[in-house]
Amino acid sequence: MSAVHAGRPLTCGTLFSTLNQLVEYPVRQLDAVYAAIAHPVRRRVLDQLRPGPATVTELAVGHPMSLAAVSKHIRVLESAGLVRRTIQGREHHLALEPRPFSAAAGWLDTYRRFWEERLDLLDAKLRARKRR
Amino acid sequence: MSAVHAGRPLTCGTLFSTLNQLVEYPVRQLDAVYAAIAHPVRRRVLDQLRPGPATVTELAVGHPMSLAAVSKHIRVLESAGLVRRTIQGREHHLALEPRPFSAAAGWLDTYRRFWEERLDLLDAKLRARKRR
Repeated sequence: MSAVHAGRPLTCGTLFSTLNQLVEYPVRQLDAVYAAIAHPVRRRVLDQLRPGPATVTELAVGHPMSLAAVSKHIRVLESAGLVRRTIQGREHHLALEPRPFSAAAGWLDTYRRFWEERLDLLDAKLRARKRR
Repeated sequence: MSAVHAGRPLTCGTLFSTLNQLVEYPVRQLDAVYAAIAHPVRRRVLDQLRPGPATVTELAVGHPMSLAAVSKHIRVLESAGLVRRTIQGREHHLALEPRPFSAAAGWLDTYRRFWEERLDLLDAKLRARKRR
């Protein structure tokens, strides 16, 4: 039997990084991460960055608000550590940072067994009702 | 056999609302869920409820704050749909609701491949550095 975590084989490296994130990810940082993703505009910005880095101007396109308003949301994401900014001349490039995502999912994962069991139960009951 | 969901009988109304929420978990509700778990006291309360339902008084034990302060945090969790309250006489019993947890993890899961690849890369670099 091989131990797995989140679909990956559990090697020394992944074990170390997993434990490190679970044990030492600062509580305050986790507060900031969840608060940052609690806004649809900020979740949309993160979704825009999933394919790869982008400039602030590129990110602002498609949001029905000013560049300044989008920039403000981006600064919240930056403070939470979810995005990293690099400045090249006059352009500000933004990219996702992996660790806060992993930490945020990590805490929720401790509830996975609970919600899967409950939702499976609901599913079975819905199917039983359909057959009747 | 009687069908139940989260302790409630499964009627046409609850069946409809259940399917509706599974398919289209409301964006505003997701905002409320992430905002609710952005506080360490509220995450601690959820952790306390993981083994099973508890009363407000039971939950308040172990928090270095008043019962009123803990109650306020519980109301935030309730508004976000993360906990359900049932009242028996003078006792208020609280239990976890599975769907908001599943929805909150669902959005983060869309980033799983990204962060796993990046953290594996970081692990490999750390190991290579250690060998040198």
